Amino acid sequence: MTTPDLQAAADALAIGISVIDRATAFAAGLPDADDHQSFLYDLAHAASAVEISRSLLDYGAKGDSEGKIACAFIADALADLHSKLFGREEAWGVGEGEIDPARGFISKYRAPEFVAQLATISAPSHLDEDFTMVADTFRRFAQDKVAPQAEHIHRQDTDIPEDIIEGLAELGCFGLSVPEEYGGFATGSESDYMGMVIATEELSRASLGAGGSLITRPEILTRALERGGTEEQKREWFPKIATGETMVAVAVTEPDYGSDVANLKVTASKVDDGWVINGVKTWCTFAGRANVLMLLARTDPDRSKTHRGLSLFIVPKPQAEGHSFEFSQDSGGSMEGRA
Amino acid sequence: MTTPDLQAAADALAIGISVIDRATAFAAGLPDADDHQSFLYDLAHAASAVEISRSLLDYGAKGDSEGKIACAFIADALADLHSKLFGREEAWGVGEGEIDPARGFISKYRAPEFVAQLATISAPSHLDEDFTMVADTFRRFAQDKVAPQAEHIHRQDTDIPEDIIEGLAELGCFGLSVPEEYGGFATGSESDYMGMVIATEELSRASLGAGGSLITRPEILTRALERGGTEEQKREWFPKIATGETMVAVAVTEPDYGSDVANLKVTASKVDDGWVINGVKTWCTFAGRANVLMLLARTDPDRSKTHRGLSLFIVPKPQAEGHSFEFSQDSGGSMEGRA
Repeated sequence: MTTPDLQAAADALAIGISVIDRATAFAAGLPDADDHQSFLYDLAHAASAVEISRSLLDYGAKGDSEGKIACAFIADALADLHSKLFGREEAWGVGEGEIDPARGFISKYRAPEFVAQLATISAPSHLDEDFTMVADTFRRFAQDKVAPQAEHIHRQDTDIPEDIIEGLAELGCFGLSVPEEYGGFATGSESDYMGMVIATEELSRASLGAGGSLITRPEILTRALERGGTEEQKREWFPKIATGETMVAVAVTEPDYGSDVANLKVTASKVDDGWVINGVKTWCTFAGRANVLMLLARTDPDRSKTHRGLSLFIVPKPQAEGHSFEFSQDSGGSMEGRA
Repeated sequence: MTTPDLQAAADALAIGISVIDRATAFAAGLPDADDHQSFLYDLAHAASAVEISRSLLDYGAKGDSEGKIACAFIADALADLHSKLFGREEAWGVGEGEIDPARGFISKYRAPEFVAQLATISAPSHLDEDFTMVADTFRRFAQDKVAPQAEHIHRQDTDIPEDIIEGLAELGCFGLSVPEEYGGFATGSESDYMGMVIATEELSRASLGAGGSLITRPEILTRALERGGTEEQKREWFPKIATGETMVAVAVTEPDYGSDVANLKVTASKVDDGWVINGVKTWCTFAGRANVLMLLARTDPDRSKTHRGLSLFIVPKPQAEGHSFEFSQDSGGSMEGRA
């Protein structure tokens, strides 16, 4: 039986880290990233896998099962990096055959019979007591409340049942990233992220759409407010986000602009009594049920300013059920949506 | 601009063919295929891609656009073969770095900017006049009759509308593989397969489920009857299959046995007035609408005979609509199904 060898894993990984470091430096020197999308896309994925591999070295040292998982992951990440590189070395700014010295490690820990045994081992998460409690709490909720409804919600394309939203609110789910002084549970340390990640992971065992992803949008608005909101905005919104009284949807993507956020077209123009927002958004998950949209719009009409001409708005709206809504304001504004 | 180089493609492909040939010979010598599933799975895919590559060399010689498509495909197939091999050379019975000499070709014809231009070129199919007519006919039907209904059928999980089935029957779709002397269009040459493949391809542009795949099941029963049916069976079933009067479902897979057909458990036992078939089948597409099931069952109770103990039955049944059916015979038999 093949036993884990973390020294060999570290040595093999060092080769991958070196390739990623040089490719990243090379990428930073490219005059126009748009001309190198395939390379940058592959590099982003490979760099993430290598970074996860690095943190798995610590985890792998905690026991035999942990070591097996670490070695298998690192071998697979390096094999994948090798595949991405082969024949595209010049585009990456690295040499040919650089991963070849790791072939022995990859061969040993990516062998089908080695990988197959991972299916039957169990390895502890090594979370501390507090995080273990978070994990247990959300796992139980996911099993009891989310899992029994998940298939129906998915197949019938229904709204998320209110008892799931209320249950998550009671567990403090929406306040995991809201600072304590505004009614949430976040202390400002890295462990805030961990709590959010663990809760998302456990809920997603039962359902991503009806469980894990409910955390994501309040989280996004919370982080944005934390970073760029006024004190008044924080006092207004944080407590309501933390209790789930205010549910959030994120209106960023547009029909013609997805990840290319710098080119968004929706405009917001200052008028006497506020702002007029004009345009079309898409892929705005939860837009119907949400009480506010976090909306990204162009406030500087000079499009050459790209992302520097954009601002975030918190747009309150009525709650809606079902697959479409249409609202109008006395002042003449209107908003409609379809799912 | 990179121009196609079919000599370079042939040279690079020769390396891949050599690897596949030796790996296939190595596979043939393995004592138990079940112990080498990862290798054999990868080999099957890589061998298919290499075989397609070989036939693309002819196609690629017909023009500049054709050459570009051929070079891009072959480069990609070789890069994929290389990825599958790396670190698993021993399991494949070949040496390390064998694909490395093709790196230059792969690099040139798998470059993102080369591949990107394929999106905007168009290359003729080079089908002869008869096949072009087959393609045009089924493409028009797919556009006019299938495409407008495809999304509704898929999203609402409805039955295939009868006007699609009738339209395809009128076009002779279900008789493409039935021999001419039994009311079909097949002449016994290789072009029978081509006609079936072209029709399937054109229908599948509009919908695989509601178009292309309708051909597949009559085709399977037709080929089986052609190979192993009695003259009486051919006279009975071929004309009805060709006209679409008899629609077919294939009942092979079982809950515990999918591709491992040799281990199927459903039994068929001879009794005075026929056969008693006992057991459960799954993934039996079109079972409701079908007028007959082509059903594979174990007629020799000695399971050690594996596939040699199996027989095919043609089981007539009433046509059913919707997502479930239940039928019983006066003689005591019953059949039920759910979709």
